[in-house]
Amino acid sequence: MSLTVGILGGGQLARMMVLAGAPLGLRFELYDPAADACSGPLAPLTVGAFDDRQALADFAAKVDVVTFDFENVPADSAQWLADRVPVYPPPSALAVAQDRLSEKTMFQQLGIPLPAFADIRSRDELAAKAAEFGLPCILKTRRLGYDGKGQFRLRSEADIDAAWQALGAQVERTGLILEGFVAFQREVSVVAVRGRDGSFLAWPVTGNWHVDGVLSASVAPAVLSAAEHEAAIGYAQRVAEHLQYVGVFALELFCRDGELLANEMAPRVHNSGHWTIEGSETSQFENHLRAVLGLPLGSTRMLGHACMLNWLGAMPDPTPVLQQASGHWHDYGKESRDGRKVGHATLRDDDAGALADALVQVGLELDRQAQVAPAVHALRNG
Amino acid sequence: MSLTVGILGGGQLARMMVLAGAPLGLRFELYDPAADACSGPLAPLTVGAFDDRQALADFAAKVDVVTFDFENVPADSAQWLADRVPVYPPPSALAVAQDRLSEKTMFQQLGIPLPAFADIRSRDELAAKAAEFGLPCILKTRRLGYDGKGQFRLRSEADIDAAWQALGAQVERTGLILEGFVAFQREVSVVAVRGRDGSFLAWPVTGNWHVDGVLSASVAPAVLSAAEHEAAIGYAQRVAEHLQYVGVFALELFCRDGELLANEMAPRVHNSGHWTIEGSETSQFENHLRAVLGLPLGSTRMLGHACMLNWLGAMPDPTPVLQQASGHWHDYGKESRDGRKVGHATLRDDDAGALADALVQVGLELDRQAQVAPAVHALRNG
Repeated sequence: MSLTVGILGGGQLARMMVLAGAPLGLRFELYDPAADACSGPLAPLTVGAFDDRQALADFAAKVDVVTFDFENVPADSAQWLADRVPVYPPPSALAVAQDRLSEKTMFQQLGIPLPAFADIRSRDELAAKAAEFGLPCILKTRRLGYDGKGQFRLRSEADIDAAWQALGAQVERTGLILEGFVAFQREVSVVAVRGRDGSFLAWPVTGNWHVDGVLSASVAPAVLSAAEHEAAIGYAQRVAEHLQYVGVFALELFCRDGELLANEMAPRVHNSGHWTIEGSETSQFENHLRAVLGLPLGSTRMLGHACMLNWLGAMPDPTPVLQQASGHWHDYGKESRDGRKVGHATLRDDDAGALADALVQVGLELDRQAQVAPAVHALRNG
Repeated sequence: MSLTVGILGGGQLARMMVLAGAPLGLRFELYDPAADACSGPLAPLTVGAFDDRQALADFAAKVDVVTFDFENVPADSAQWLADRVPVYPPPSALAVAQDRLSEKTMFQQLGIPLPAFADIRSRDELAAKAAEFGLPCILKTRRLGYDGKGQFRLRSEADIDAAWQALGAQVERTGLILEGFVAFQREVSVVAVRGRDGSFLAWPVTGNWHVDGVLSASVAPAVLSAAEHEAAIGYAQRVAEHLQYVGVFALELFCRDGELLANEMAPRVHNSGHWTIEGSETSQFENHLRAVLGLPLGSTRMLGHACMLNWLGAMPDPTPVLQQASGHWHDYGKESRDGRKVGHATLRDDDAGALADALVQVGLELDRQAQVAPAVHALRNG
């Protein structure tokens, strides 16, 4: 297939899309504001702002279809592009996902359970809704927040002023939303794909652990009852149909006492689906491309059990992972920077116990016992 | 790992190495006489002749280690490079593999059974050795032959003149070798890897079917007795130790009445190992890079059963393969040209019967029943 795919955003998600798409015969054009975007070594990169219409028009002229590695491309830029070249997922889906209030309102309309939420326009509304939801609760920007950024957790009534001081200035720019706190036992995500023909597939639900709001480790399949598993995938399918979505997306859910509550969706390939590269028949990256190109979707069946460990800040020594039979390494080729996602490892094994043993070994050798512990526990205690 | 790997040759093998090495954080520099080398879109390409010492010196200055996607790089160029930068596999191994006579003499010295062979320097020697080996037999150039090129099969005594006419002029340039014909029941290959530390691993032996001397289909694991399997891998290990080899190589063998006979070795990643991308824990491309960089080798365990189908000349419609749950597509991004290797597909399944069914379906839809038939037979009859 001598088609060229344009990707808005040239980070690690774009990089892994290029690596998944090259075997399909695809070429890529990347667009990113940063000249050192980490997918740059693998495909031509246009350096431009996401609202530079001239640069976007030149970019559109070079590609057959446009997709995203970054969900916060301005939805109006995406729509403007969509008038010139096919753009998937649809910019309207991007617009919903970019706004926590629209997103949660959609979940509510689709009958998907979710924590209490409210649009917040003033300090008084914040105080009133915090009293209604109970503490703790979380004040967030409606837009432009990700990986725990743009959030303030209110632990007591005394925090209301601090929260308003931290985020109140954002009311006009991004909007604010208050979310009730959920004392969940587990966090899981559904990574799913919908084709241009409406076909829908999901990978097995993934269990996730976050540290400071950033994904630290994932295990697939997640420890869920069959009913929970089915419900989670059903919710994802409702969202996909409603948005007439095309491509891969993730739906993050909290599990509390056997109940699933929607947290948020990401309208793109997702960090909690990185294990699909080695751990399933078709990776999220390949299926995203198959979807946006209108090709048949690939099987999402799992190959055994998989655990993904995120590397933040700087890459650790690869040797302990490479020494494991189950070990696979992913270095995004980025400069080290505090908190930055610079790579990940996936360990995959047909046997959950062997995978747990390998994780323990990696945790010891890299002195990352705390990072591997919840994954080991999930694999051993099922 | 911010290391740069130089690859001499920029064809599909280099392309698949780049795709396997990028997740390890590697960068690549490619060197090829052709400006349209198919790995060009994925890494910087130096266009130069393999004996252009100035261009090679400039290339060497940009890389941390050099390897090959092409076995017929002049061995003296490889040695000249090795005086400037680490080169793996060792140029001495390349030199042996480039000369069928050296190669077969090595097999003989290592106690590896092989068909009768003789150095041929004249028409009279050809006639005498053909009488000794019996007909049919095959006259080949000692050097620069691959994929059935530079070969003449003698079916009767009357063919001696025609064979000499076709290849006799090569006596001085490439040398000639006569090989006894083997009425084999099966062709198999061992794809194996040896690390810089001497560690050795092999993938399960692969069964291969050729058409006009070019690989058409492979199935792994091959249908072999445990003793044959062990012998085949033992032969590969003897070769690897003898050559102090570093990297991936393939040893092709004939199976005749339970006996294995060495045919030839390829000092590089090999077409009969392409199935390892989806069908084993670590692909031949990744393990080749791990070996040349001195990293721990990855597990060569299989994931179920795999079949690789080569696409020659032009890419077929991808849809029938992509519709199979087991189907994976590889389009090298080459222009169509008669007989050219332009891509392949791998079908992988835990269940051999399901894989056979998928192959039958693909064969029907692509009207390639003859190509899939021997693989289907092997999978169904074990």
